[in-house]
Amino acid sequence: MKTLAFYLLLFSTLIACNNKSTSTEKQTTSIQSLTSQKKIIDLSHTYSDKTIYWVTSKEFTLDTVFKGQTDKGYYYSANNFCTAEHGGTHIDAPIHFAENGQTVDEIPLEKLIGHAIKIDVSSKAANNPDYLVSIEDFLDWEKSQGTTIPDGSIVLLQTGFSKYYPDKIKYLGTDERGEHAVKLLHFPGLSPDAATWLIQNRNINSIGIDTPSIDYGQSEYFKSHVILLEEDIPAFENLTNLDKLPLNGFDIIALPMKIEGGTGAPLRIIAMVTN
Amino acid sequence: MKTLAFYLLLFSTLIACNNKSTSTEKQTTSIQSLTSQKKIIDLSHTYSDKTIYWVTSKEFTLDTVFKGQTDKGYYYSANNFCTAEHGGTHIDAPIHFAENGQTVDEIPLEKLIGHAIKIDVSSKAANNPDYLVSIEDFLDWEKSQGTTIPDGSIVLLQTGFSKYYPDKIKYLGTDERGEHAVKLLHFPGLSPDAATWLIQNRNINSIGIDTPSIDYGQSEYFKSHVILLEEDIPAFENLTNLDKLPLNGFDIIALPMKIEGGTGAPLRIIAMVTN
Repeated sequence: MKTLAFYLLLFSTLIACNNKSTSTEKQTTSIQSLTSQKKIIDLSHTYSDKTIYWVTSKEFTLDTVFKGQTDKGYYYSANNFCTAEHGGTHIDAPIHFAENGQTVDEIPLEKLIGHAIKIDVSSKAANNPDYLVSIEDFLDWEKSQGTTIPDGSIVLLQTGFSKYYPDKIKYLGTDERGEHAVKLLHFPGLSPDAATWLIQNRNINSIGIDTPSIDYGQSEYFKSHVILLEEDIPAFENLTNLDKLPLNGFDIIALPMKIEGGTGAPLRIIAMVTN
Repeated sequence: MKTLAFYLLLFSTLIACNNKSTSTEKQTTSIQSLTSQKKIIDLSHTYSDKTIYWVTSKEFTLDTVFKGQTDKGYYYSANNFCTAEHGGTHIDAPIHFAENGQTVDEIPLEKLIGHAIKIDVSSKAANNPDYLVSIEDFLDWEKSQGTTIPDGSIVLLQTGFSKYYPDKIKYLGTDERGEHAVKLLHFPGLSPDAATWLIQNRNINSIGIDTPSIDYGQSEYFKSHVILLEEDIPAFENLTNLDKLPLNGFDIIALPMKIEGGTGAPLRIIAMVTN
């Protein structure tokens, strides 16, 4: 009987082991298998004449080059467009605020792809468009998750403001444009103290937020930009759909347009979340 | 002795099983773990004043908005740019040649992310800039790999022409620009017969090539475009680094700029290859 029990145990162990092995093979051979177990969430706004830009920046324009039947009998359509590097869902390359920082084409892809966490301050920012994400917000996340922010994380800040996009008055604080409108900007951002704490105490790969800027609207010296970008930590701005993400345990793939010498670029950014 | 042998076998099986289990957990919780086992290869050219465009298209221009120290004491740099949707490493959305096809912002991300295969015709195209990838090239791949092209594949065509980029005479066949230069274009593409065979006999998600167009330079009616795009199969053009990919068993992530109503867009496309 004892020998039979061993046979049965060995058999069931082998079966269990084999199942896991199959699962592993599927995941290593193909992202398709990975995506079949995961949901892809697009964190990018579209570019159009409604796209939100800084109040002093050139906005997005699209010009139709051709649209319709050609004289050769096939349909054809094509457009040209112009834009500032920094508008809509985009990336700030380190050189945007750091003279010797990386340009957008120099950012290692490994900093833009990987595991991510989300800090949700939307309840605090709901009635305070000048809310600054604080060191305490990060410590609260760590306490609730029972872990420090993992090395190499992509950190997303959810203020809830993307729900106002593209309403300029609600999202930016003003629908005026030009230099005088800068002082009218009101939206949440990351406090410079928290940016300093992050670079001194944690080892993150990149950071993102669902407002127009990693510094809040009332910022005068853009200190959080300077602190992060001087450490070659790129920032993703004007994100959306962060409310569809969990607080931990998901992946980000953020691929900017590869502009040679670019200080930033339009960004397509997606999350992959376990179903 | 027999019982001891069973103990040892059971023990070693459990160890092996546990190793696989750990490996599985790492892969399911994070793409970072996935990337740590995989090499990321960038298949995208940079955008600059050397970027290759169609001979009738508007080329890439970058204008410096500001670069230097501000009067508030911090460094700042930013640019504007203009471009045709179709130039450099870009995507053709179905609506580019199919009146009722998807615009670039409507393409499901699932068609742009997943397992990929490569058809290498570089030796055939080396001395023939008018080479057309044929049905036989696909059948040869299937024979060599012992499998049909898997459902949902992203299919990349390696002609070897990216080694000439951005030399217009070698890559395009001409450095002249304007309507008259269209007839001077010489570079490889996909034959319309092979495009028809693909949509009738295989189930691919998208297609890409390391030349300026999925139709070859001498094409007059852009039939391969029409055949593929009418089936909502997007095409990636002006790819690079395809020589660094295996023929099978790798993954593609292709994320275009999300232009509302766009007929195409700049594309950042990467491969993930097992180390």
